Amino acid sequence: MLEQLKQDVYRANMQLKEFGLVVLTWGNVSAIDRESGLVVIKPSGVPYDTMKAEDMVVVDLDGNVVEGTLNPSSDTPTHLELYRSFEGIGSVVHTHSAWATSFAQAGRSIKAYGTTHADFSNHNIPCTRGLTKAEVEGEYELNTGKVIVECFENEGINPNDCPAVLIHRHGPFCWGKSCFKAVENALILEEVAKMAFRTEEIAAVEQKQVGIEDYLLAKHYNRKHGKNAYYGQK
Amino acid sequence: MLEQLKQDVYRANMQLKEFGLVVLTWGNVSAIDRESGLVVIKPSGVPYDTMKAEDMVVVDLDGNVVEGTLNPSSDTPTHLELYRSFEGIGSVVHTHSAWATSFAQAGRSIKAYGTTHADFSNHNIPCTRGLTKAEVEGEYELNTGKVIVECFENEGINPNDCPAVLIHRHGPFCWGKSCFKAVENALILEEVAKMAFRTEEIAAVEQKQVGIEDYLLAKHYNRKHGKNAYYGQK
Amino acid sequence: MLEQLKQDVYRANMQLKEFGLVVLTWGNVSAIDRESGLVVIKPSGVPYDTMKAEDMVVVDLDGNVVEGTLNPSSDTPTHLELYRSFEGIGSVVHTHSAWATSFAQAGRSIKAYGTTHADFSNHNIPCTRGLTKAEVEGEYELNTGKVIVECFENEGINPNDCPAVLIHRHGPFCWGKSCFKAVENALILEEVAKMAFRTEEIAAVEQKQVGIEDYLLAKHYNRKHGKNAYYGQK
Amino acid sequence: MLEQLKQDVYRANMQLKEFGLVVLTWGNVSAIDRESGLVVIKPSGVPYDTMKAEDMVVVDLDGNVVEGTLNPSSDTPTHLELYRSFEGIGSVVHTHSAWATSFAQAGRSIKAYGTTHADFSNHNIPCTRGLTKAEVEGEYELNTGKVIVECFENEGINPNDCPAVLIHRHGPFCWGKSCFKAVENALILEEVAKMAFRTEEIAAVEQKQVGIEDYLLAKHYNRKHGKNAYYGQK
Repeated sequence: MLEQLKQDVYRANMQLKEFGLVVLTWGNVSAIDRESGLVVIKPSGVPYDTMKAEDMVVVDLDGNVVEGTLNPSSDTPTHLELYRSFEGIGSVVHTHSAWATSFAQAGRSIKAYGTTHADFSNHNIPCTRGLTKAEVEGEYELNTGKVIVECFENEGINPNDCPAVLIHRHGPFCWGKSCFKAVENALILEEVAKMAFRTEEIAAVEQKQVGIEDYLLAKHYNRKHGKNAYYGQK
Repeated sequence: MLEQLKQDVYRANMQLKEFGLVVLTWGNVSAIDRESGLVVIKPSGVPYDTMKAEDMVVVDLDGNVVEGTLNPSSDTPTHLELYRSFEGIGSVVHTHSAWATSFAQAGRSIKAYGTTHADFSNHNIPCTRGLTKAEVEGEYELNTGKVIVECFENEGINPNDCPAVLIHRHGPFCWGKSCFKAVENALILEEVAKMAFRTEEIAAVEQKQVGIEDYLLAKHYNRKHGKNAYYGQK
Repeated sequence: MLEQLKQDVYRANMQLKEFGLVVLTWGNVSAIDRESGLVVIKPSGVPYDTMKAEDMVVVDLDGNVVEGTLNPSSDTPTHLELYRSFEGIGSVVHTHSAWATSFAQAGRSIKAYGTTHADFSNHNIPCTRGLTKAEVEGEYELNTGKVIVECFENEGINPNDCPAVLIHRHGPFCWGKSCFKAVENALILEEVAKMAFRTEEIAAVEQKQVGIEDYLLAKHYNRKHGKNAYYGQK
Repeated sequence: MLEQLKQDVYRANMQLKEFGLVVLTWGNVSAIDRESGLVVIKPSGVPYDTMKAEDMVVVDLDGNVVEGTLNPSSDTPTHLELYRSFEGIGSVVHTHSAWATSFAQAGRSIKAYGTTHADFSNHNIPCTRGLTKAEVEGEYELNTGKVIVECFENEGINPNDCPAVLIHRHGPFCWGKSCFKAVENALILEEVAKMAFRTEEIAAVEQKQVGIEDYLLAKHYNRKHGKNAYYGQK
């Protein structure tokens, strides 16, 4: 059942590891077959080294396991809520990638500072509100999905224009048309988060440091590039 | 004697290198066979490249070498104190991994900021008090172990619920049921420390930086994703 | 046509990936054959993994495609403006490398702090002014090139003495005599940007932290290097 | 002549690249044969990829080339001054490794904050004074060596107890008994510099960030480790 999609979801999960977006068994990718309404998702807590395409689990949009002998990712209800609410998406990715997660832990959205961000999203990457005690102690993973949907509704963002969100105190979810595109978005989000942090630090640092002395600048430049350069071979 | 455990401890030590948690000969992993009360530990100062499973040293809980021709790790008395005091643990790992060590050098515990931490420990990762001059000049490595035990007792933490500690001015010790689990914990600790630092920096930075201009955001987003996109191939 | 140059430009583009200066399909390298006035440039949005030397596109200095079936990089008009205005250069490189881009996003030039910078350029690496709304909504990529040229004219910098610039809110462009030299310059720029940031942070940090205690310094130094050292093997 | 030493110096130079301490052709390692007073050193500006052991240059302590067809490193006079003044050393290494160089650019010594530093040196790693205009415009590389020696004399440090120094606005020089030991010291210096920076940042950051909510901490810990854990497989 859905053999090609299982292969793709398996490969996309392996890319999380290859791109350095996850450690150990963290992270998960799913993809939906919109015709049948079935979702292929990574099994819970299986090491990437030994995972196989056959291990992918097929669930329906209500979370019933349709095929597979392993437990699906414990984050499955979050994925399903996104598929139910965001009709344009074909795949969902969750990671604890370090830069994006650090913004999530700080409870801050990622502000758009440059064209790398603009190539990716035409909005700041929003951070959801924190879940309430009742939401955490109730259907936690489902409520995580609901809080994402609420966040996009409240901020009036079309999820097709902003393929990522930060869960407060938790980490990012990303999406895309295909599972490879969704993983690509998870990678770009991490780059964008890293550069946003550095942009803020560069703008904030009090510049107490004087520059290199003129004569030392000239000396080093000229010993390498000047008329009488003596660095390197002839 | 304990051939399988030696193989495992050897492999777990090699993982420290593979996971980027140590440089040169730094770091050490041990594991205990609770039935016989014997501990298998890395030899002191041996390069990872040439180390073999046979080089692992077997010591009893009093520190007597039972098998092996090399000196055991100079940190052996710390490991043994942990095995004597923390009955639920099967393995101890010590590294100077850079993020965790930096918190230790600053004398600060690692505060829980998000679910990555919560998946790992249900406490902040404590930092011990500094050893006194007498403790340093006496049985230093034994006293290091004692200060860890004292720290967990004083803070009322069950070591089974928090598999790591920071030694003041020194670095982390981690533990687990098996040596592979203990190394995994050392890796997670490093991720958690890195993200805790970044969370604090992100929360603290004074945001002097204005975002990208609206027209530039729109231009870049649309040249890639808009109706008249001209980035890429058809 | 220009087969050797296509091979070189292909290889130089692949180096961007190997040197960690780009992710996904980001970045592009071109080189000019000054005799014919023809420019070889990377196609737009093609994955590095499957790109071949034959995919390189040949354009003239007016931007007409002379050979090749793929679209040239969407940044081609910026490259061409640099070739028209900076006569000493043979190759142009564009990346979104993270450190240099973060300075660009903050709208800050990279100040010369040490000899690594001086070995590379005898000027601070300038950051252009932001493009106006009209410039962005008009011939955006051409105007990007014009703003670079304007920046070097206004600051009185000879582009042969400073092989890099930061585009405001965008990222770096670098150049050199050959495409391999230009990529080298992109790599050095990233190192220089990283070290400039850290230099400013090191100079700015308020040093609240006391150092290691004398007796602990002595203990660790001596257990490894002292007369009665007991670290390692005999 | 000195074939084994040439092999060793060649291998030690290659380690600089393998350890990530240099980019491109940066950095250089030399070693001295104390009996003959001859020094083997890396040639200037040769790519690591194509460099061979035979390319190593032999010079005497006055800087005369005794064997070899390539120019010796332009930093040779600095190396020689260290061999003449620091009698206990057998090898000198120079890099522009990013963390140590950033301290050098900021004109700051690296303070000892923990046992990783203490395992390496029983002093702070000093930063020299800046060279004067006359020293820079005169015999620059020789004067660089003299300023190092002056620094150790003024601060009363025995170079055998502190195998590294930072040159103001420039970068680190390290040394050791053998060239492999000296490269090891360059690697440790970089780790120590990185952790010193982070220690200062961790101590300085104003902790505005509240921690994770108790109920979320408990939820995540228990879904993985609690009695009713549902993360992973059975």
